[in-house]
Amino acid sequence: MANGLLEGKTGIIFGALDDKSIAWKVAEQAVAQGAKIVLTNAPVALRFGGIQKLGEKLNAEVIPADATNMEDLENLIDKSMEILGGPMDFMLHSIGMSLNVRKKRTYTDVNYDWMHKTFDISAMSFHRLMQLAMQKDAMKEWGSILALTYIAAQRVFPDYSEMAESKALLESFARSFGYHWAKKKNVRVNTVSQSPTPTTAGSGVKGFQTFLDYADKMSPLGNASAEDCANYCVAMFSDLTRMVTMQNLYHDGGFSYTGMNPEVLGMEE
Amino acid sequence: MANGLLEGKTGIIFGALDDKSIAWKVAEQAVAQGAKIVLTNAPVALRFGGIQKLGEKLNAEVIPADATNMEDLENLIDKSMEILGGPMDFMLHSIGMSLNVRKKRTYTDVNYDWMHKTFDISAMSFHRLMQLAMQKDAMKEWGSILALTYIAAQRVFPDYSEMAESKALLESFARSFGYHWAKKKNVRVNTVSQSPTPTTAGSGVKGFQTFLDYADKMSPLGNASAEDCANYCVAMFSDLTRMVTMQNLYHDGGFSYTGMNPEVLGMEE
Amino acid sequence: MANGLLEGKTGIIFGALDDKSIAWKVAEQAVAQGAKIVLTNAPVALRFGGIQKLGEKLNAEVIPADATNMEDLENLIDKSMEILGGPMDFMLHSIGMSLNVRKKRTYTDVNYDWMHKTFDISAMSFHRLMQLAMQKDAMKEWGSILALTYIAAQRVFPDYSEMAESKALLESFARSFGYHWAKKKNVRVNTVSQSPTPTTAGSGVKGFQTFLDYADKMSPLGNASAEDCANYCVAMFSDLTRMVTMQNLYHDGGFSYTGMNPEVLGMEE
Amino acid sequence: MANGLLEGKTGIIFGALDDKSIAWKVAEQAVAQGAKIVLTNAPVALRFGGIQKLGEKLNAEVIPADATNMEDLENLIDKSMEILGGPMDFMLHSIGMSLNVRKKRTYTDVNYDWMHKTFDISAMSFHRLMQLAMQKDAMKEWGSILALTYIAAQRVFPDYSEMAESKALLESFARSFGYHWAKKKNVRVNTVSQSPTPTTAGSGVKGFQTFLDYADKMSPLGNASAEDCANYCVAMFSDLTRMVTMQNLYHDGGFSYTGMNPEVLGMEE
Repeated sequence: MANGLLEGKTGIIFGALDDKSIAWKVAEQAVAQGAKIVLTNAPVALRFGGIQKLGEKLNAEVIPADATNMEDLENLIDKSMEILGGPMDFMLHSIGMSLNVRKKRTYTDVNYDWMHKTFDISAMSFHRLMQLAMQKDAMKEWGSILALTYIAAQRVFPDYSEMAESKALLESFARSFGYHWAKKKNVRVNTVSQSPTPTTAGSGVKGFQTFLDYADKMSPLGNASAEDCANYCVAMFSDLTRMVTMQNLYHDGGFSYTGMNPEVLGMEE
Repeated sequence: MANGLLEGKTGIIFGALDDKSIAWKVAEQAVAQGAKIVLTNAPVALRFGGIQKLGEKLNAEVIPADATNMEDLENLIDKSMEILGGPMDFMLHSIGMSLNVRKKRTYTDVNYDWMHKTFDISAMSFHRLMQLAMQKDAMKEWGSILALTYIAAQRVFPDYSEMAESKALLESFARSFGYHWAKKKNVRVNTVSQSPTPTTAGSGVKGFQTFLDYADKMSPLGNASAEDCANYCVAMFSDLTRMVTMQNLYHDGGFSYTGMNPEVLGMEE
Repeated sequence: MANGLLEGKTGIIFGALDDKSIAWKVAEQAVAQGAKIVLTNAPVALRFGGIQKLGEKLNAEVIPADATNMEDLENLIDKSMEILGGPMDFMLHSIGMSLNVRKKRTYTDVNYDWMHKTFDISAMSFHRLMQLAMQKDAMKEWGSILALTYIAAQRVFPDYSEMAESKALLESFARSFGYHWAKKKNVRVNTVSQSPTPTTAGSGVKGFQTFLDYADKMSPLGNASAEDCANYCVAMFSDLTRMVTMQNLYHDGGFSYTGMNPEVLGMEE
Repeated sequence: MANGLLEGKTGIIFGALDDKSIAWKVAEQAVAQGAKIVLTNAPVALRFGGIQKLGEKLNAEVIPADATNMEDLENLIDKSMEILGGPMDFMLHSIGMSLNVRKKRTYTDVNYDWMHKTFDISAMSFHRLMQLAMQKDAMKEWGSILALTYIAAQRVFPDYSEMAESKALLESFARSFGYHWAKKKNVRVNTVSQSPTPTTAGSGVKGFQTFLDYADKMSPLGNASAEDCANYCVAMFSDLTRMVTMQNLYHDGGFSYTGMNPEVLGMEE
């Protein structure tokens, strides 16, 4: 589908690592719908992924930024406004990483310095971005800011570990800053709580395939794909959803409101 | 905005009483976005409103149906499929009426026959519609069914009286039937929890203007209008939101997640 | 445990069918904690169960009442106040029955007259009871009213069918009437959302043992038993919980906030 | 009330600053109900408050501990087990402080080092405590761990600033660690979401009296006091509530489920 829904709109998209990334798909869809974008990711991530190729394909500048570094973020916002011609219409935050998970520390034996770092990368980066964007007046009236999250913020998935807290933090930042953005510039802030998605990042989590299969069977519509999520983000960036703010929006094929699905237990219904 | 988002899609829209109705605006927007629709309302409502004029303007047939009457609903679905060329893509349920409120019985002194009738009109009608539509195979794969609701289903607004329970019931039907529709035909079912809206129906509720002002001040973006709601319904009918189901979606300018807004208390922030 | 927590308190307990009933255990615990009670159930239920024996054991009068019949409920309240010496401190509503489930009509093919009856028995009976109790001034200041519910009000358990809506309705009545009781007499109203429990009534639901096992594995503490629930109800009737009202309280070993438990999938953690 | 509900039980209580503190009241109530306790607070807080006097009155040792310091926490747990004769039955976490609020930085202009510190004091301290307690096997089977929180974790109260995120984090830790504690030792972990309370700490927050009055009028039962909260904590520590875990329990006179109370707007109902 390409309906020119984002015609004339501009924005920044964080977190496109490779073509399995949700952010990658969002970037493609946003441009297909008429938007002009800037891509960004951590300097270290840029080296691994094919983001430069994506940038070329979408005619989008790629600006490296460590999302925990205020100077990098300032530079990103300043340059983006230059490139895109002033304040923007949308931003997508799709960043998450747990040091304790990566270093195989269980939830009941975490390292607290790493936990601080995890929160900074996965959640405080969202506050940093919004604080700078507000101070630099980088969003247009009725703009739309989104972050990707997961239902582990509400319910326990043991292997998700401290990412549960990161997402709880992220969603709270969306609500709190959503209030301030609304008052200041009628900008909306929401989180999209996506089905587990087979991205390169997600695959690192222990038992991830189990997550995927379980969620797919539990969800009456099955798991939402990265492409589905990109479509939904387009809807949330478009002018059709201007009055939705401070929400955590489940995009998960119905997982969140299914208590038991006979398929999970291998039963015929 | 008209982006052809609903090009080739067909649907039924309940509850367009007059040009203040949300359903009226949804009908206009849906057609503007390329959909072909059938309009319906209770026979008694048809007499008062200008729905016939709307039908002419939108080139949409108007089929009267009492939503608590299975024969009327059967006739509506059969005729709609005839007119629209088979199974449909979307349905909007926008029906609600409380007999106890209308007859000025307070919440602690209700008449239970009227309560039954209120639930039938305002909530069971949604189950009736979905049950018949499923039995008649009246929805296309990946279709979208919506009903309008209000946050009184979650929190107490004393004057809303038994409509609180009607909406709790309606939202539960959406979840339960959403499960079955997903399994059967990948159809999604959601409720949109809209800001209080100055419709002709809403205005009948005691203290309604107070509701409106309070909600408008409490909501960081202000109250969502009927037009805003129509845009949101279009997004929910479009293919951009295929994997969202069994959700209650707040479309309320942030009211639902604001605990206190200094404006309500007449304070400067 | 018997700590005299309910010393000097009086109340009515609905729904003790036999010694597997939660209400039966609540009656025993309440009396053990010092309360004086009246037992009640539907006339038809009285014939099957051993409630008379329970009454003798607990020195409690048994007053039959069809909870959908206002005269029966009036008689129950009047007699109870006579027996117990005036306004009461607590009430337990533990009533639920689905005609469509009993008569094997699936959720997508219900009979709507039966649905009305189901709602009346399982939910409106709670409103009827509270409305009469308020009109007859049958509750003491700081009293406590409880109803038993199930998480199907929030999430879909396909076999639970229209009982999901019954419980959604019940919980909404608790909130709405809770507001009015608080304003009028500082009485609190809450629902306890209990683990699936192997009662005689529950066992009638299709796939009930599956519910039980699944819930037991999913819940980090396992399923809460009827005895556990009775203890919790005692806490909610006691003066320790005076300021808790309009809440739905999960008493379920953690089921409600567990997204995935490896045990369900037969995995070692 | 003193019913010997906590007879034979032992525990640690954090955060009793002075006789307005909730923790102070919990300590008094716990001892009155038969418990033996250890009191703790930050070294700096010990200097200001009268906790030593409370310790003498309750025959409770006072052990200073900075809750962000692992050595302090280790010492606290080791000494407590020595004093109390081994593993404990309950713990109360009642700690919270925002550096950005204290230093008058608004929510849209925070200092991120201070935010890290705020999270560490107000939320990560709870994880630290539970991690050490688990590693040192410091809890008895069926023990109960509580932390005090506020509804700002769910809804925006602008002046609460980054404490909203601290509480969101705290509640997520309760859920996640609640899962692990349940699996390991049948210990339950919950948060009590208390009405705004006129403690010495709370009074520091800007516009706090406004919070208090607004919440009091909005809550059908009025605000819950520190004494009420202490009673509720006793219920949650007692064996009456063994199967309640991973919950956020509103103890707020009904505030959380009231959408509008005419009193707030100065209206007669």
